[in-house]
Amino acid sequence: MRSNTTLENNFTNSAYTNILSKIKNRKVRVGVVGVGYVGQALVEALLAERFETVGFDLNESKLASINHPLFSPTTSVTNLSKCEVICICVPTPVDEDRRPDISDLEKASFDIARLEKKERLVVVESTVSPGTLRKKVLPIFEKALWKGGNNLFLAISPERIDPGNKSFTLKNTPKIVGGIDERSTRLAVELYSAIVEKVVPTTTPEIAEFSKMLENTYRLVNISLINQIKGYADAAGIDIWEAIEAASTKPFAFMAHYPGPGVGGHCIPVDPVYLLEEAKNYGINLGMVEEAVRINEEQPKKVISEAKKKLNGHTAGRAPKMLLLGIAYKPGTADTRESPAIKIIHEAEKEGFEVSYFDPYVPKLNGYNSRFLTRELLEEQDVVVIATHHANIPYELIVNLDKPVIDTRNILRSYHQSVLNPNGEYT
Amino acid sequence: MRSNTTLENNFTNSAYTNILSKIKNRKVRVGVVGVGYVGQALVEALLAERFETVGFDLNESKLASINHPLFSPTTSVTNLSKCEVICICVPTPVDEDRRPDISDLEKASFDIARLEKKERLVVVESTVSPGTLRKKVLPIFEKALWKGGNNLFLAISPERIDPGNKSFTLKNTPKIVGGIDERSTRLAVELYSAIVEKVVPTTTPEIAEFSKMLENTYRLVNISLINQIKGYADAAGIDIWEAIEAASTKPFAFMAHYPGPGVGGHCIPVDPVYLLEEAKNYGINLGMVEEAVRINEEQPKKVISEAKKKLNGHTAGRAPKMLLLGIAYKPGTADTRESPAIKIIHEAEKEGFEVSYFDPYVPKLNGYNSRFLTRELLEEQDVVVIATHHANIPYELIVNLDKPVIDTRNILRSYHQSVLNPNGEYT
Repeated sequence: MRSNTTLENNFTNSAYTNILSKIKNRKVRVGVVGVGYVGQALVEALLAERFETVGFDLNESKLASINHPLFSPTTSVTNLSKCEVICICVPTPVDEDRRPDISDLEKASFDIARLEKKERLVVVESTVSPGTLRKKVLPIFEKALWKGGNNLFLAISPERIDPGNKSFTLKNTPKIVGGIDERSTRLAVELYSAIVEKVVPTTTPEIAEFSKMLENTYRLVNISLINQIKGYADAAGIDIWEAIEAASTKPFAFMAHYPGPGVGGHCIPVDPVYLLEEAKNYGINLGMVEEAVRINEEQPKKVISEAKKKLNGHTAGRAPKMLLLGIAYKPGTADTRESPAIKIIHEAEKEGFEVSYFDPYVPKLNGYNSRFLTRELLEEQDVVVIATHHANIPYELIVNLDKPVIDTRNILRSYHQSVLNPNGEYT
Repeated sequence: MRSNTTLENNFTNSAYTNILSKIKNRKVRVGVVGVGYVGQALVEALLAERFETVGFDLNESKLASINHPLFSPTTSVTNLSKCEVICICVPTPVDEDRRPDISDLEKASFDIARLEKKERLVVVESTVSPGTLRKKVLPIFEKALWKGGNNLFLAISPERIDPGNKSFTLKNTPKIVGGIDERSTRLAVELYSAIVEKVVPTTTPEIAEFSKMLENTYRLVNISLINQIKGYADAAGIDIWEAIEAASTKPFAFMAHYPGPGVGGHCIPVDPVYLLEEAKNYGINLGMVEEAVRINEEQPKKVISEAKKKLNGHTAGRAPKMLLLGIAYKPGTADTRESPAIKIIHEAEKEGFEVSYFDPYVPKLNGYNSRFLTRELLEEQDVVVIATHHANIPYELIVNLDKPVIDTRNILRSYHQSVLNPNGEYT
């Protein structure tokens, strides 16, 4: 057991105690770099706790959505220099070759490192592979003569925002925090403890970075697993949806995942790629994760194969017409990043389909306009694909349609369900 | 909507109504074939609800453990002829070539089919691949001139017993039931509704069979996934256990699985093999499941590699001594079926180790006797492997041992933990 007094004496320095007391007294100014859905949630939480907050984004429309007396929007990074705490919430996507692209994070770090030097806590909320904070971000600051643990406190706290999730928000989702040293961890814990219910410190930033990889790799692997197993269920004539429902009644050791046209968004299809790349650096082959990524990327093609099979040459000599319903990656959102629907459109065009779409949340996409969903529009189609199951699509128009319908989400089930209820009676 | 009256009229026959009313009035005699941990739990639940129960097993010691005025043990299958309901709870393992072996189920079906013919509900609780009830079990009865849906009612209800689980027992774990026809489903629902809190009927037996495959394939895939990812974490010097703990704080969309020497028992390593075989019959390749099975089977070898690496040639010229702690497949049980510890012993012997073991639950195994765990015994060893983390092993003897210890379950962690607590203070 170490003595707490001795520890505190060795532990504190003036920069640390300055920032700590400013956080405790809500006197700290917090800068947030990148005000997308992650940065925005953070800004709002900080403002709710009366922290003076500066939001930096090059996209003015994102800044315009926040109005609060303690909020200063800016498109100039130098306006962050008055902030003792800066949180980086920039995207970390994959590039065209599907390799990790952390250039936004590096650029943000570089910009912050060049700000006037006094003392500062910098927290990265972007999802990165283990080792990134220490091996990629810290050196950018050190080159600008910041001293980690002395005047620079650096931590990672991977965001866990689930867009559209009404049960779990920033506030009631535990926040993981890992600093490059104890002081950094403590300061970041202090900051987040002011705005979220539970903060979970890790002993190293790598553990924090890695925990996020585990969360989203778990998701991708299980969704790809069920998509792969669906191939067997379809061949055997077994309703996989009812089987999943049955399995889900097990009250322990099972979590349901559902088939679909592939998983989209900026996290689940992307984070495992970061993990794979980092594992390669150690000569480790993660076959299960690779297979999961491969299955996920093939899902949109399977939809096109199914469409062609259902048409069975009936449209020979002309371009078959395909209507997609829902193109956002997630129901109830307008977000089309990494959306499998976009890949379905791309594949369908390659295969000679004439494609249109309806999405109440996405009026325009890549030169397409969302169509009005009418009976006439449906009658013109050769095949209809339900790609994303927004709640506000009039499915009753589709359920009795005399056309092939590919219902990748099984949303039509409730319209023609006839199964035994728990009393053993047919409904 | 079908009229209930018409449905009932078409639906009932005298055999059906006879059995139904006998179940409702607790006048039915229930036979249970196979009184292992699954059959025993079922017998006890039936007796608790005052069903007259006949237990058939060739192993008399299993029968001897049950004492109840309504219970008749028998080693003769013909004594089941007075039972209107028979539940088959025989094991469905894999054979030496790791292929599904349903011979016990076929034998039980054959024996029951030859019993005196009147009317009977037969329920299979053994885990089988989708299609087994209809394509393998039903024909055995039909050959003996039983008529499915007429005098034979046949259903599957895959057991979900988790040995040692104190929270979820037969009674409060929902029971899946799928019959070959509606009458079979209804009768089986009626039977189980008497002894468990919730019965979940499926529209086909294949869905019920498949749901069990989904449950245990999910388990194996996720355990193998974390075992594979541990390879990266070890190489990168990241504590995977703390990362899993951190990830587990996510209150949605994550379920923790833990690394280990491979998964054992009669379900999780076995059921996915059944699914793989059945998928092959449809020409479907389930790469993720195959990879999961492969990883699981390699885990014991990894333990031996680690042991050799730790010894680093220090025992050149003599057989290195290895002591295994815990050889049951699960903590708190004596069950060694498919236990990875046995595979570790086998691999260790092949590699020239002199192996001994300590397991408070398993006094003898394959010619070995459990040793007494003393400091002297530990001092004699070159390497100690904790294979199964029984609670009643005196780990304090091991934690300060000046020997290589391979702690596959991370059970020693609590003996030398020093991490940040949620307040950001070191404990």
